[in-house]
Parts: sequence; structure tokens; C-alpha cells
Amino acid sequence: MPGSLPATAQATWPNDVGIIALEIYFPSQYVDQTELEKFDGVSAGKYTIGLGQSKMGFCSDREDINSLCLTVVQRLMERNNLSYDCIGRLEVGTETIIDKSKSVKTVLMQLFEDSGNTDVEGIDTTNACYGGTAALFNAVNWVESSSWDGRYALVVAGDIAVYATGSARPTGGAGAVAMLVGPNATLILERGLRGTHMQHAYDFYKPDMVSEYPVVDGRLSIECYLSALDRCYSTFRNKIHAQWQKEGNDEPFNLNDFGYMIFHSPYCKLVQKSLARLLLNDFINDPNPNTESGVYEGLDSFRDVKLENTYFDRDVEKAFLNASSELFNEKTKASLLVSRENGNMYTPSVYGCLASVLAQYSPQQLAGQRIGVFSYGSGFAATLYSIKVTQDATPGSSLDKLTSSLSDLKVRLDSRKNVSPSIFAENMKLREETHHLASYIPQGTVDDLFAGTWYLVRVDEKHRRYYARSSLMDDLPREAALESVRLSTANEHIPSPAKKVPRLPDTAEAISVTNGEH
Amino acid sequence: MPGSLPATAQATWPNDVGIIALEIYFPSQYVDQTELEKFDGVSAGKYTIGLGQSKMGFCSDREDINSLCLTVVQRLMERNNLSYDCIGRLEVGTETIIDKSKSVKTVLMQLFEDSGNTDVEGIDTTNACYGGTAALFNAVNWVESSSWDGRYALVVAGDIAVYATGSARPTGGAGAVAMLVGPNATLILERGLRGTHMQHAYDFYKPDMVSEYPVVDGRLSIECYLSALDRCYSTFRNKIHAQWQKEGNDEPFNLNDFGYMIFHSPYCKLVQKSLARLLLNDFINDPNPNTESGVYEGLDSFRDVKLENTYFDRDVEKAFLNASSELFNEKTKASLLVSRENGNMYTPSVYGCLASVLAQYSPQQLAGQRIGVFSYGSGFAATLYSIKVTQDATPGSSLDKLTSSLSDLKVRLDSRKNVSPSIFAENMKLREETHHLASYIPQGTVDDLFAGTWYLVRVDEKHRRYYARSSLMDDLPREAALESVRLSTANEHIPSPAKKVPRLPDTAEAISVTNGEH
Repeated sequence: MPGSLPATAQATWPNDVGIIALEIYFPSQYVDQTELEKFDGVSAGKYTIGLGQSKMGFCSDREDINSLCLTVVQRLMERNNLSYDCIGRLEVGTETIIDKSKSVKTVLMQLFEDSGNTDVEGIDTTNACYGGTAALFNAVNWVESSSWDGRYALVVAGDIAVYATGSARPTGGAGAVAMLVGPNATLILERGLRGTHMQHAYDFYKPDMVSEYPVVDGRLSIECYLSALDRCYSTFRNKIHAQWQKEGNDEPFNLNDFGYMIFHSPYCKLVQKSLARLLLNDFINDPNPNTESGVYEGLDSFRDVKLENTYFDRDVEKAFLNASSELFNEKTKASLLVSRENGNMYTPSVYGCLASVLAQYSPQQLAGQRIGVFSYGSGFAATLYSIKVTQDATPGSSLDKLTSSLSDLKVRLDSRKNVSPSIFAENMKLREETHHLASYIPQGTVDDLFAGTWYLVRVDEKHRRYYARSSLMDDLPREAALESVRLSTANEHIPSPAKKVPRLPDTAEAISVTNGEH
Repeated sequence: MPGSLPATAQATWPNDVGIIALEIYFPSQYVDQTELEKFDGVSAGKYTIGLGQSKMGFCSDREDINSLCLTVVQRLMERNNLSYDCIGRLEVGTETIIDKSKSVKTVLMQLFEDSGNTDVEGIDTTNACYGGTAALFNAVNWVESSSWDGRYALVVAGDIAVYATGSARPTGGAGAVAMLVGPNATLILERGLRGTHMQHAYDFYKPDMVSEYPVVDGRLSIECYLSALDRCYSTFRNKIHAQWQKEGNDEPFNLNDFGYMIFHSPYCKLVQKSLARLLLNDFINDPNPNTESGVYEGLDSFRDVKLENTYFDRDVEKAFLNASSELFNEKTKASLLVSRENGNMYTPSVYGCLASVLAQYSPQQLAGQRIGVFSYGSGFAATLYSIKVTQDATPGSSLDKLTSSLSDLKVRLDSRKNVSPSIFAENMKLREETHHLASYIPQGTVDDLFAGTWYLVRVDEKHRRYYARSSLMDDLPREAALESVRLSTANEHIPSPAKKVPRLPDTAEAISVTNGEH
């Protein structure tokens, strides 16, 4: 019986709670940033070099936050051969709000209907791009608490990031990530190691309830992001240092103690600057840095810099970008694959970076590494925490399965359709005019969707939304594939093997990752 | 150092995690439901008897979700002499969304500024009226997890419930509840005892992003509420029965095992029907009920009733309302004080019921009792869980302090201003037209607000909101009091005694409740 821990139980936390499986979804179409520069009439390189973006994924009016999350959850469940009754918690982090009351979580409960499992805790959580991280922390806490009933938690982060025409438009994107959370995980959240900083600011917010577009104070947002990074890194470093001291190690923590370092990525260039900023933090924090040679060589003149005065200091930025370039290549660059090719996904952004790392390094390169994760949501809420990758990199290990499941990431990105800037602009216009309408039938084609993508069929006169799923059978002629699309979720997902609630296996071995459906 | 649990820690959950202090805020003005019946031209008794409502609190354009939450949090901190640096987590449950991205939580961080404490986890969580319960569960899980750093969690539930003119309008209300969560609590959440049911439905939702009003399918919503109650009660009963069996007790659980039973209250009459429905559940679940005498007397003809066929069965409803009337008076009636006098507050509704119980029974009547709690949020998400009240009812005990802090509840309700239905209607019209505007200066008077109430001063051209607080000095002439209102939060709250982070005391004794500020 789930949740039936005896009243007198004094249980210990289960071992190694964290991420067991991860699925990422992004739209099947994109606009090229070089073409967008021309279309927008801006100088060449403004988006591609200035922002560091190469492509931007976007949704037609066929996709909304519900469909994105339906797609990514069902893909995760299918690719890991999971039954819906082994999920005891499901929480969605999003800032793509299409209903002020009804959660995306309740929409996802349609996927659970055949299993008969309705005892699934968790709802939606919101603060800009931070919602996915909040949901992940809540899930991990749940597994460690007396509320845990032995089942997995599912964490979903999804958003559609769109901006009004102007300088922010090329920083859009869209997508969703789903993560399976439980004990004996492959990516273990390190206990007690969270540096959190929350503060009131109007740097980026969405007060115009009828628009998908935010109000952005670009300069303030960068200052908030970088100051949060400073604060979170400082707190994180202090906490890990205190842990190490208890273990007899008095070394200070610095960037080298992260095998990989990933960031929430509004655009790639800010991430590169952020990695440089961590080096600046290390430098200022070092009582006696060697400026004669090594990574700090030539930085002596920056010895007395105050962090709070350097958010827009070009000299400091340039010097530390330069000094950290090798560290960036080693620890961060690979994480920007999805961000660079698909854009900012808001809540899933930093988990898209995680997916990018897992997709591009071998289990051997990842095993035992500490991955630093900086999550930022405007308004603002930020945490820097760390993930420890399991040691076992052997074929068939959980790490091998996890990386295998993401090994097609580049192929999937490359298989997307390149859409011209004018068609992209038309799509944005269409969304502007119709995303909030009742009695609406979407106009976008469903032919180009990835196999197994949920899409919006109609919105009725009472704003109720109805969805269908594109066929999983990519190799069928399109007509036949479309015929197999159904309006209800019935029989769309893998039938549950049993109505009884299975408990988690002691290891994650029971999860078999399939990888041949794209 | 908060959060610096050693990496190798295998800690057990702390004892008795739950609610330590509770503060409730409601508007200082109400409309009388008898007068509203006349004003609306409906039959006498439609609202007062049919719905069971006597008064409805409402906000002018001076209050919004941010101000409600600022008010209730600061009142809780002040009345319990708490320093802001002893809070390690703060989460807000609300469905009153005035920004799609920026959380209310970040606005509340203004209260923390003087303390220098920004390491405060948690953001906002949303699914209709369920958000407060989700936030409470998240807070309790946090305290039991490795993420806990020894500090308190704060859970805030707040909403403004307003409806378009018509039959739903008298079911509005407004308010906020703040709860302090930690170990060694006065109201202990019983471990492993949660019956949760989540399902997709469009019973009540808010797809019109520019309106404060929901779309409601009244009949469907009642069916969802009652079916969720059935499912949650069944799961709860099974879980507690399994616990009892492990302890050697094979008795089935029934209503008598709750000292008090409280419900999310859209309107009081539905709660009375819900208590009756739990008796119906007990009756159906009893293999051999005595229909000759006692509570089931004369109910023999309902022996073969199927729950799912009875949501709108008048005969069943009448028979079990009648049979449960004494149970209702004993276990539930007192909980409806705030609901009856202030209306539905959405997320805080069920916690207003909890406050009502604590305000009207003595520590001796409450000590050791199990309080059943049914939380429901449309869309829909529901949980039935249980709270165990501590045994110690002696003067000065934490239970004595908690009940004392709420003992003025009736006086506070009675001190509100009775406003005519026409003025109420004007206020609703004003909110309709202005609640979403930029460059707006609210028109409502601040003279009638309770002492220490935060209110909206203006919304600037970029939708940024600015607040001030009415004086805590009720006995000053109004002019003097108004002079003391400030635009910033600086110095508004009790200065933190120390910048260092205090850890929780082993018992809740350190919290001294003051109670003389209204």
C-alpha cells in the first residue's frame, strides 16, 4: 500500500536521490539566426556572435504548454518502458500560463487514466525560468520524506518563450524536459549543497495577462542574473567548504572542482560571461592568486575589484572571458548545444544544458564527475547546486543507458525543418492574435511534427482544449499515419502491466531505455 | 551554516513535523448575504440557507494578491516575534495570478531585506484552491529531507475569489493564511496518511486571462468535488487501516476516528453535504451496519446504493444529511465560522476552517484529537489527510499559545464594516475595469483597513506595483496613523536580533505569541 509507512517509522533518507531518466522535446521547426539577422535588418553577427545563438525553435498555433508537456511525459514513459502506476508524484514548472487556475499537471493526468492511478501528488510551480528547479527540489525532498511511498517522481519543465518584435525576439525558443526522480539515481543531487538567492525585482515579468510576451528590463535582468550568480556561488562554496572541513579537508572550493558547469541560458553569450564571472569570484576569493602564470596570469590589476561594481565593466568582462576561455571549452561549451540550436526554453533551459552534456560525453568521461548547475528565474529566484554522476560507466550501467537515451540529440536537432524568417514572423503574428481565443481551430500543419507529438486540435467555446497525437510510425505514408491519430488518449500509451502499484526496484536496472523511435 | 549537513549524513526525519503557528487575514469590509439576496432580487434564503453563507468579505482596488500575502506574513512574524532570518523556505499557494512569471514569493522577499536573509527556498504553486495544501506538503517534506537546514518554513495561501454577476457571485470571498512549519509542531501532519486523487476536468478554471472571474460548470464541479472526496477518503481509510493492522488493530476506520473534520468550503452547505457523504461512505463500507438503531437507523433501503450514482440523488442526500446532523454539529460546524462570515477564500479556505476550529475550542478540547482535512482544487486535485493535535493543553503550552493567538477571530470578524450591496457591486465593477491596468492609482479608501494592512499605492506605466502599510497604531487619530504609512518596507518589520541564522529550538517554546494588536 503506497504511503503506508508505519506511524512510528524513523526511516533514513534513501540512498542517492536524483535523476534516473531524462527526456527532452523541442519543436520540429526552427528559424536560422543568420537569416533572421538579415530579415530584421540588423548587423551581421548581432544574434549569432553577439548573443551566441545559431537557430531558434518555435511552435505554430498547434502547440501550447499542455501539448509540450503531454509529449515529453509520454515520450519519457515510453522510452523507459514505465507503467503509469509507478509514478507517485508529478509536478510541472512553467511560466507559460494559459489558465490562471487549472494546472498543466491535471491535463497530464489524462495520460494516467488507463492505469487507474490517480494518487499522484504535486501540481504546478511558477517563478519565471526557475520553476523546473523548484519542482526538481520538491521531488527530491518528497523521496527523502515520510510522504514518499516508494514510487518515482516525475518532474516536468516546459515553456514557450516568445518576444515582441525587437531586440529580444531572437532570444526566444520552446521546449520541454521531463525527468524521472528516485533513489539510486544516475545523477545524484549532492545533499546540503544549495546556494539559493531570492529577491524582489522587476527585471523580467509578464503582467500583461493577454500577451505571451514579457516586459523586460534587459540591463536590470543581467545585473540580477550576475548578482544572483555571485551570491549563490558564494553560499554554495561556503557550504561545500564546511562539508569538506568536517571531512578533514581545508582546501577552498573553486571552479576546478566542477567537472562540468551548466547555467540557465537566456542566450549562449551570457553563459560564457557567467563562467568567466565564476572565475572572477574564485580570483577575488583567493587570498594569494598567482598572477605570474596560469589561469590568473596578467590579472593583477583586477585584484581590488568589487563584484557589485563589475556587472557592466567591459575591462573586467574581457579579461576574465579571456582567462576562462579554456575552462569554458572544458566545462561549459558542450552544454550549450540545445540552447544554441533551439534557443531559450525558459524552465527547461538549464536541463537542456544537462541533456546536451549527457549527449556529447561518454559514460567514461561523465562517471564520478560533479556537475554544477545554476538555475535562474527572473523576479527573481536562483540556486546553484551540484549533481554527482554515478561511478559505474560500464556498458548496461544506468549511466550508459541515460547517455544512450540522449545520444540522438544532435541528429534530432539536425532533422528539424528550417523555416524562413517571414514564415516565422507570420507564426508569431498568428500566435499573438489567436493564442488566447475560445472557439478556435488551429491553422498550423501537423505534417511536420515529430512522431509522437501531441498537438492542439481545437479550443471550444468554453476555452476547453482538445489534443491529439501524431503517429509514432514515421515510416508510414503520411495519410496512414494521420489516420492513426486519435482524439482521446485511450490506448495511446503503453498499457500498465498491472493495476497494483509497483515499488521502485532497489537499483534503477529495471528501467530499460529504448532509443530507436526517432 | 544552513544546509551544511555532512555528505555522509544518514539522518532520520525530525519529530512531529507540522504547523507551529497560524495567522489569518481577511478584508475589513463585507456585504451581508441577506441584503445581497434582496439586492439581487432572489428568493429570501437562497444565499443564507441554500448556500449557508451569512456574510462575504471583499477587497476594494486597494488590495491584490501581493498585498494580502504581505499582510498575513508580516502579521505572523510580528505576532510570534520571529526574525526573518529564521525562515529557510517560503512558498505561496494561490490562483489569483496577476503576473504569469513573477511569483508572489519574490514580492514577499521585500519583507526579508533588512534581515539580509535571501537564502529562502520555495516559489509559488498553483492548482485552483489546492495550492495551499501543495505548499504545506512541500514544506513538511522539506523539513524531513536532507535539504532542511534547521530553519522554519513559511506556507502562505491567499486569494481573491470574485465572480461575475449571477448565481455564483455570492460564493466569493477573499483572504490569506500563513502557517509556520517545523518539527515539534503543535499540529502534526500524520505520516503516510494522505489520500490523493488528481484528474483532468474543466469544472472550474480561469482561461480568460484578463478577467478575475472563473468559468464554472457548477454541476460538474460538485460531481468532481464529491467523487474526489469518495476516492480520497477510501485511500486514506485504507492507509490508516494498514498502519493500524501493523500495530495489531484490525478495526476499520470510520468518521468517529476524527475528532474534527474540516473541508475546503466553496460554500457552507456543500461542506455539510460532504460530511454526510463521508457517513454514506462509512455506511457502504460497513459489512454489517446496524439500521435498527444508532446513526444508521432507518437507512436500510440505501444498502445497495452505488457512490457514483448518488452525486445528485436527493433522497440519499437528505437521508444522510439527517443521519449525520449530530456528527456535523460535533465535528464540522464550528470550522465554518470564517467560511460563513467571510466566504470562500480559495486556497486559504480549508485553513480558515482550521483557524475556526482552533479559535472556538479550548486546548483541552483539542489536545490529542485527530483533525481530518479535505482539500480540493478544481481541475482537479484533492487530498484528504490528517493532523494530530499535541497532547499538552496546559497553560503556556504550544497548543495554548496557538489557540490564544486565534482567540480574537470572532471579535475581528465582528469588527468589520458592513457595506451595502450597491457599494459592493460598485467595487466589483471597479475591480473588473481596473485590476489589470498599468499607470493606475487605486481609488478605494485606506481608512477602513485593519491596522497593519498592506495596500496598493500605485501601478506604474510598466505594471510595477508599489505598496504601503497602514499603521499598527489603531488608537492614534487617523491622520497621525496615515502619516506613519511608508512607501518602502524599510523598518516596517521587527528588526532581526542577529544576522546569524538561528536554528530551531528543540521545542516550539521559544515562540512567544502576542495577541493584543487588533
